[in-house]
Amino acid sequence: MAARVLYHSNVQTIRVETQSAKYDVVAGSGLLETLAPRIERVVGRLPRRVFVLTSPEIWALWSERFLESFSEKPGRETPVALFLPAGEQHKTIKSVERLTREMVQAGGDRGSLMICFGGGIVGDVGGFVAAVFLRGINYVQVPTTFLAQVDSSVGGKVGVNLPEGKNLVGNFLQPQAVFADIGVLGTLPGRELRAGLMESVKAGIIRDRALLKYMEEHAEEILGRDAKALEKVIAASIRMKADVVRRDERESGLRMILNFGHTIGHALEAATRYKAMLHGEAIAWGMVAALAVARRRGTITGAQMERMEKLIYRYGPLPKLKVRAAKILAAAGHDKKNVGGVRRFVLPVGIGDAGVVEDVTAAEMEMAVGYMLERAR
Amino acid sequence: MAARVLYHSNVQTIRVETQSAKYDVVAGSGLLETLAPRIERVVGRLPRRVFVLTSPEIWALWSERFLESFSEKPGRETPVALFLPAGEQHKTIKSVERLTREMVQAGGDRGSLMICFGGGIVGDVGGFVAAVFLRGINYVQVPTTFLAQVDSSVGGKVGVNLPEGKNLVGNFLQPQAVFADIGVLGTLPGRELRAGLMESVKAGIIRDRALLKYMEEHAEEILGRDAKALEKVIAASIRMKADVVRRDERESGLRMILNFGHTIGHALEAATRYKAMLHGEAIAWGMVAALAVARRRGTITGAQMERMEKLIYRYGPLPKLKVRAAKILAAAGHDKKNVGGVRRFVLPVGIGDAGVVEDVTAAEMEMAVGYMLERAR
Repeated sequence: MAARVLYHSNVQTIRVETQSAKYDVVAGSGLLETLAPRIERVVGRLPRRVFVLTSPEIWALWSERFLESFSEKPGRETPVALFLPAGEQHKTIKSVERLTREMVQAGGDRGSLMICFGGGIVGDVGGFVAAVFLRGINYVQVPTTFLAQVDSSVGGKVGVNLPEGKNLVGNFLQPQAVFADIGVLGTLPGRELRAGLMESVKAGIIRDRALLKYMEEHAEEILGRDAKALEKVIAASIRMKADVVRRDERESGLRMILNFGHTIGHALEAATRYKAMLHGEAIAWGMVAALAVARRRGTITGAQMERMEKLIYRYGPLPKLKVRAAKILAAAGHDKKNVGGVRRFVLPVGIGDAGVVEDVTAAEMEMAVGYMLERAR
Repeated sequence: MAARVLYHSNVQTIRVETQSAKYDVVAGSGLLETLAPRIERVVGRLPRRVFVLTSPEIWALWSERFLESFSEKPGRETPVALFLPAGEQHKTIKSVERLTREMVQAGGDRGSLMICFGGGIVGDVGGFVAAVFLRGINYVQVPTTFLAQVDSSVGGKVGVNLPEGKNLVGNFLQPQAVFADIGVLGTLPGRELRAGLMESVKAGIIRDRALLKYMEEHAEEILGRDAKALEKVIAASIRMKADVVRRDERESGLRMILNFGHTIGHALEAATRYKAMLHGEAIAWGMVAALAVARRRGTITGAQMERMEKLIYRYGPLPKLKVRAAKILAAAGHDKKNVGGVRRFVLPVGIGDAGVVEDVTAAEMEMAVGYMLERAR
């Protein structure tokens, strides 16, 4: 039984427990080729209709390996591939309508399973489709980018954009399992890997001093895609997020610290119409700005600020910014996370801890954006 | 404190408890004028932004009374009215997109509240909008048709149609409360009232012998809209449904009995493109067909069948049918409730009880449809 050996190969399993669900995130090598039996161990026998939502690019590269384990046992039907073209412009309600219609036409029923095989957008859209198709079916995440592996595939936030802003329509629905195969990162463009690693930098800053230290000391291996190093960073990042989500699934308290860098990062994305940079790059600049507020308020020392800022740049280069401060500040006024007009802001407290404040002033915002733009010239 | 007295007026409160939520359904008179304080007793102080989804017709008739209690206390903002034109053709994903965009533009946030003020379609669409807007906000149902009061406002099934079929996209989300004001039924067209009463007939047949008896003995008062009689029927129907939903929120077992009459009723609607009759009328014919199957299988006696069929016609007249049997039978093959190709069918067992079978044959289906068409000429 050669296939069996792979189960015992180099994988780490992180348990995610929330009020509404419990599931495993499996991270490591050799997962793609053993997907069908792995999923069966979670959901039981595969249903008559399995859907896989993916992008044409990913499918061209990986479909053969992906389908291998589905065809090796008689009785397992080949998954029906559904496609979502790359890009935020397809993360829409219209795509949800098209995909659910295709699923009805292909004979999908309440017992069907959705596998999201792609980056964060595929995961968000596919998870949302699973949440609403016939009022909800099971789904599994098989993220193919670093960012999706450490961030968007864990936590159960699924949804689509509106013209008015990102992720304004969605749901909370936990997957049955997540399989993060490090092997598929081999074909990921370098810039995307670096942008994704910003999530791990964030994880280190807000909650995991040891991860931060590891990323300082092993930057070369990590950026060189050493499998062991990547596995370590991915597992630590997922563990951090799983721990936070377990304590606060619906983002009513603690989970908000995951938004570190997001207040100004989102504003930066909005001000540049989501075209000038990757999400991770925007969050990286947002973290730099947030560090400036934290320094001004004294929740971090000058030396701590320097150390964290240096780590952010180590996983760069970050794109230069040619946006006017006023435009970023205006965009920051419309953030979805504002409740009752209050602007929430996550500030690091030393290294490895963070808190949420609600009283960041317009003057502090201006200072922070000014500091960031100064660094980004 | 004149308003206070109304809380003690003629209302019945039914507690709905499910795994995911607990809430009250309040049925009776004088609810509309006291809505704001009643909602505040459930959700606390009203949020900055309250939305009310309604139809232009309902709003023209009732907006003044609806808004009364919101303006009587300083600090309460007037709800923002959103409109959904009448008719299944607007129960679409496109409407969800339009409504969520309007809510963003009107300053909606995660603390906002949605009130669904209308018939079943308004409740289904508004509840689904609440389920997905910013990944979920609170909502309250204020149903204005008999059918919505006894059926669609209880149970947390929300959603929209696809061109391929009804309710194929949706969610399970329980409201914070339901207020069923019998007063608004005064302007309901007689045909809609009678179609709605078929839900109560169904409730009696599958689970409440006493309700069935009451409806036999008091048909004149009920159809004459006597407030006391309507309140009794509405409260009993809601109580039956609440009890079933409490035991099986996600329709994995018992809740399926609520689909009595639906297999052939839905097929009839689909075969006539949802234009020839009201939902309740289609379900009524579907019940007649199901009774024929039950009689053939011996789960009911001839006398029982006659008694139940007579009650159905007492709340008619039902529309004549000019559809061909083959068309109805073909449509019955595509029912959403089919899992793994199995056709589920609800059969009454005596009077006041029912069960689900999965082995109804093509021949039985033909016989049942034939019986129904014979009666409907």
